[in-house]
Amino acid sequence: MDSYLKGITILGSTGSVGTQTLDVIKTHSGKFKIVGLAANNNHIQLSKQVEAYTPKYITYSGTSTTLEDICNTYQVSKRKLSEIATSKETDLLVVATTGSVSLTPTFEAISSGKNIAIANKEIIIMAGEKLISHAQTHNVNLMPVDSEPSAIWQCLIGEKHSDIDKITITASGGAFRDISIENLETVSAKDSLNHPTWNMGSKITVDSATMMNKAFEVIEAKWLFDVDWDDINVILHPESLVHSFVGFSDGSTKAQISPPDMRLPIQYALFHPERMENKNLQKFNPAKSKNITFKEIDNNRYPCFEMALSYAKKGGTWASALCGADESAVSAFLSEQIGFMEISEIIKSAIHSHNSIESPTLEDLIAAYNWGQEQVNNIL
Amino acid sequence: MDSYLKGITILGSTGSVGTQTLDVIKTHSGKFKIVGLAANNNHIQLSKQVEAYTPKYITYSGTSTTLEDICNTYQVSKRKLSEIATSKETDLLVVATTGSVSLTPTFEAISSGKNIAIANKEIIIMAGEKLISHAQTHNVNLMPVDSEPSAIWQCLIGEKHSDIDKITITASGGAFRDISIENLETVSAKDSLNHPTWNMGSKITVDSATMMNKAFEVIEAKWLFDVDWDDINVILHPESLVHSFVGFSDGSTKAQISPPDMRLPIQYALFHPERMENKNLQKFNPAKSKNITFKEIDNNRYPCFEMALSYAKKGGTWASALCGADESAVSAFLSEQIGFMEISEIIKSAIHSHNSIESPTLEDLIAAYNWGQEQVNNIL
Repeated sequence: MDSYLKGITILGSTGSVGTQTLDVIKTHSGKFKIVGLAANNNHIQLSKQVEAYTPKYITYSGTSTTLEDICNTYQVSKRKLSEIATSKETDLLVVATTGSVSLTPTFEAISSGKNIAIANKEIIIMAGEKLISHAQTHNVNLMPVDSEPSAIWQCLIGEKHSDIDKITITASGGAFRDISIENLETVSAKDSLNHPTWNMGSKITVDSATMMNKAFEVIEAKWLFDVDWDDINVILHPESLVHSFVGFSDGSTKAQISPPDMRLPIQYALFHPERMENKNLQKFNPAKSKNITFKEIDNNRYPCFEMALSYAKKGGTWASALCGADESAVSAFLSEQIGFMEISEIIKSAIHSHNSIESPTLEDLIAAYNWGQEQVNNIL
Repeated sequence: MDSYLKGITILGSTGSVGTQTLDVIKTHSGKFKIVGLAANNNHIQLSKQVEAYTPKYITYSGTSTTLEDICNTYQVSKRKLSEIATSKETDLLVVATTGSVSLTPTFEAISSGKNIAIANKEIIIMAGEKLISHAQTHNVNLMPVDSEPSAIWQCLIGEKHSDIDKITITASGGAFRDISIENLETVSAKDSLNHPTWNMGSKITVDSATMMNKAFEVIEAKWLFDVDWDDINVILHPESLVHSFVGFSDGSTKAQISPPDMRLPIQYALFHPERMENKNLQKFNPAKSKNITFKEIDNNRYPCFEMALSYAKKGGTWASALCGADESAVSAFLSEQIGFMEISEIIKSAIHSHNSIESPTLEDLIAAYNWGQEQVNNIL
């Protein structure tokens, strides 16, 4: 008898996390089968993935070719995003998209009992409380695929929630951490994509430079690990080796450490609760690292950070409006419409008058996200 | 109904770990009752402890007063070491003695079903394999009370043994880590007691300076965590904040971190599997630490380290002979009979001709320990 293969569907298969998820799956041949792949606009990459991994279903929302063409060429079935996410052959859904497109499909996948490995931060930020409770109701695992929340998760394995004293999330400081604050006014979009330790998509790389990304991770941690806002700290750690700390009530602290490589948190979620050897992943060697450094964050350098948290703490649809506004503001920066230090200002101007909805539906959350996007676009 | 108080007996109550154990117990009043205290020669301290903690039984082996005198003054019952260790009111035996005196009482306590919190390294080093199997047979917890093995234990909570890839034990480098190797010939006993990060007994402080202590911790880890010799590394870490690392098969590493304070591993063992708040214990603050550094060990500076491991790896009674020889060699150094760099030489000369016994009894182990002591004393 063949051993059972875990059925994997990836939303956002051609993005940074999507391709690395497939890399991990390739390393562990005979453990997984690819059920569905969903891509936004890279049809060349998607076609290669279809050829290599022979999924049963695909979807594609780009315009440079048609979904039908790819399906005909490779004899694969087309499905809508929600159909792929809930397909019965799927055991684990990897949500590796960005923005809000996968919000509803993720909730639907949970309703149909799929375990979820989630790299799409916006979904957790927009719908955190609702998402966690929905996953609990349907008794599915909701597993973070990102180095910091994965680190926290690993530090908490075998520990009791009530023993958590403080979570400290590390931050590389992003592409401009060593540039004087005065010069931040004139940094270019191209420069912002030179992240010192991580190779990621362009949106998240700019979010790292503004530290909006770190505010997002604080919000994620709040929901994923059910802790108070005041029990989450952020600290600069330029080497990106320690991915987070968890401090316990007795004064003990645990850290998870590894060379920066997204494939580790991906693999950890794919195999959970197992750990699996992977010779492609480098191991931390303290003798080689020599110095591991930490310092406080300078809020003047990263105005997005506190601003984002102050909005998120208001609850309702505020975090959704924030995500939408950030999406548009970062796009505007990348297309050189605004300068780097204008990102926080434009987000603030765009959403300060938001009419938040208490106890929002998914539609309310998406509407607030779209509203945040439009508000920024209207100002530009 | 009163809540149940965990009955604690401490062998070595007036030593460094013994007094700190009582400090932790005092902090958590209403959680523990002191059943028995055993002290070697500090009758003044023992009398104070008897007054403060009103144990049911005590023992005292010193000569500056008699056990009867203390018992009469404080109306407490005298018992032999083995009787105290196995007393029926004892739930948890804290073995905080040094040397081999508690070896047999510890085995007897395990036979009578007591959980053991063990700080007395020599017992684990002399009898590791036998001790672990005896604890398993009687289904008792054998819990390390020392920062490094406690760190490893904490990193392994919730993890699977088969996922361990490598254990890395940190070492401060001891009192002479910054002195040139040439000058190590002439360092004094007094200087050796100025440990840079830990305040401990004199024997272990010298063992830290020679790194015999670190070899002992490697041997401890081998038995306590059932790993291969080759899967245990040691690394210099002058700040003594990270107490050990555990690397897993998937490339992830966990570390346990806390300001150097023996009360944390003591408390962790006393309350296991609970963690308990203790406001007396400082918490690790990465922003305050700033730099955490690591470097490889220079074996020329620490000849005891490899020498000790090479003997321990031979099995049988070799590690017992090593412990006995080290006991006498360190005494000789502390009483200025030999120089610092002679410690390793004299141990080697003393035990290289040891007649090891395979599958030794406890008596064989103690005889080998005594033989090691005598061999050194004969050479002096």
